[in-house]
Amino acid sequence: MSQRTEIAALGEFGLIRHLTDRLEIKNKSTVVGVGDDAAVLNYENKEVLVTTDLLLEGIHFDLTYVPMKHLGYKSAVVNFSDIYAMNGRPKQITVSIGISKRFSVEDLDDFYAGLKLACDVYGVDIAGGDTSASLTGLCISITCIGEGEKGKVVLRSGAKDTDLICVSGDLGAAFMGLQLLEREKKIYKGEKDFEPDFSGKEYLLERQLKPEARKDIIDELQKAHIVPSSMIDISDGLSSELLHISKESNVGCRIFEDRIPVDYQTAMMAEQFNMNLITAALNGGEDYELLFTVPLSDYDKVSEMKGVKIIGHITKPELGCYLEGRDGGEIELKAQGWNSLNE
Amino acid sequence: MSQRTEIAALGEFGLIRHLTDRLEIKNKSTVVGVGDDAAVLNYENKEVLVTTDLLLEGIHFDLTYVPMKHLGYKSAVVNFSDIYAMNGRPKQITVSIGISKRFSVEDLDDFYAGLKLACDVYGVDIAGGDTSASLTGLCISITCIGEGEKGKVVLRSGAKDTDLICVSGDLGAAFMGLQLLEREKKIYKGEKDFEPDFSGKEYLLERQLKPEARKDIIDELQKAHIVPSSMIDISDGLSSELLHISKESNVGCRIFEDRIPVDYQTAMMAEQFNMNLITAALNGGEDYELLFTVPLSDYDKVSEMKGVKIIGHITKPELGCYLEGRDGGEIELKAQGWNSLNE
Repeated sequence: MSQRTEIAALGEFGLIRHLTDRLEIKNKSTVVGVGDDAAVLNYENKEVLVTTDLLLEGIHFDLTYVPMKHLGYKSAVVNFSDIYAMNGRPKQITVSIGISKRFSVEDLDDFYAGLKLACDVYGVDIAGGDTSASLTGLCISITCIGEGEKGKVVLRSGAKDTDLICVSGDLGAAFMGLQLLEREKKIYKGEKDFEPDFSGKEYLLERQLKPEARKDIIDELQKAHIVPSSMIDISDGLSSELLHISKESNVGCRIFEDRIPVDYQTAMMAEQFNMNLITAALNGGEDYELLFTVPLSDYDKVSEMKGVKIIGHITKPELGCYLEGRDGGEIELKAQGWNSLNE
Repeated sequence: MSQRTEIAALGEFGLIRHLTDRLEIKNKSTVVGVGDDAAVLNYENKEVLVTTDLLLEGIHFDLTYVPMKHLGYKSAVVNFSDIYAMNGRPKQITVSIGISKRFSVEDLDDFYAGLKLACDVYGVDIAGGDTSASLTGLCISITCIGEGEKGKVVLRSGAKDTDLICVSGDLGAAFMGLQLLEREKKIYKGEKDFEPDFSGKEYLLERQLKPEARKDIIDELQKAHIVPSSMIDISDGLSSELLHISKESNVGCRIFEDRIPVDYQTAMMAEQFNMNLITAALNGGEDYELLFTVPLSDYDKVSEMKGVKIIGHITKPELGCYLEGRDGGEIELKAQGWNSLNE
């Protein structure tokens, strides 16, 4: 049996010291990290980018199947993704957690191991945070600070008529991973010696449990001297994000079903679940891929980029936002937000 | 009866728009505020200060006696206080809230009214955030970004032997305000037509429910050309904060009971509650006053500062951290953290 140390054994300050001791600073913009009233950062000649995400137990994650280490990794990565979506580079995070007695020091060690791993992979410093007791579930709030080159920060609002709409990676897999985990959880409830069946579906699980942010795409764009006219990361589903760009840029858009990148495992799983594959790809969420637009003149350059697909183009605003199906039919794109308050 | 609009009636994006619409930008460092993947800030020739606080229902606040508007105000102010404690100026906040169905749109409007009032008073922009459903209580996470002049940011670690220890305002009142509110809450539980008795104790309530951050002290220090050798804001009690400075600066300290500033109402209340007044002042917390050290050579200058009192001096580390009582006896200072996980 694994060890369990009660958090009360360390106390507040002991716990903070335990979790943040020997944090190595990687970026010269991190002047003072954890341990004072505020972190001190230096962003000479750069734009400062700030994004924040709140992750609540039971809403954003289910600890019955999400290991604490994965949760730490994902909590950091989803914030990095927002900074990349500005054409920036994440540099620091602050980490606030609210924890109940249910959690042990070892649980938090696992969570921090995931956080630190993500920070190592993406070159980010943990620069501060807050640790608190919680009466209920686990509560995680991460703020990420990043740098953008002057004049090269990309907003949602710059898309222009005729721009190409591009998307990285493939869509819908994280959503299918979630469906799979939920199914196995339901089966598990009745059984004692339960072995979940994930064979051949590892990619879906990885996309749900350990997503990556597309630093590589930002690197590729830089190498190809492309500054997208607009960009957003896909956290709520392609449909929702496209509508954000369209609204903020005051344009319409048209995408094509046969261009939307979907992985083989995602398609297989949709079939097994008797789900509409395109709905999963459009509305699934948590893909953390980048959706961006470039002028037509960049067509050759984006066509050559690995892991990027052109899925449609920007139109005049009065033409609305539509998906053209394989059969030539048109479906209007609809927004999706969280619905937990409606249930 | 006041109006109640369900949050579900607006949906996620509708709610965010409702809360953040027409936010006025006050600072030129706020290049892009709410509405993109990240805020874009420009901190040319300044140090960037970042601090974050997590406030959880049942741990940090009790909605039976804390009005939502006050909660919004306080949530912002406690973060500003951390930036002032670096000798900096708060400029932006990001606001993340997790809300359950229990809350109405009007509740959140009140919360935001308090937030916005605090931002107006202190000249701060709301630059981003996250809004989420919560299965349980209200969860608030605020990150504040501020600016510091180069070379004038004040850490906890700069106190030197013989430095004077200074504190602004008075201590223990917020703690007494909390005791008072808790007492009235207990009485209220039994009665129907209950009128809480707060006459003559308005100051204690105000200190607990609507604390202010000491921007005025930072202004005064600047005018007097004083850069403290160390500084911290008093959120966990004087004792705790002094120990932070002592530890980070590797020094000892000696403070004097008869120098510790306490308001008349605080003293009266301590007597009524049969509580040790000095314990309340040392360990009470939530005062949001500034505790700082200055070299002996600044004695004349700090003596003339309004609202600042010299309460002792820094010593060599081997002399430890002590309070000298009115009777000449010595009490070793002890740290206090949250204890909610021990209960």
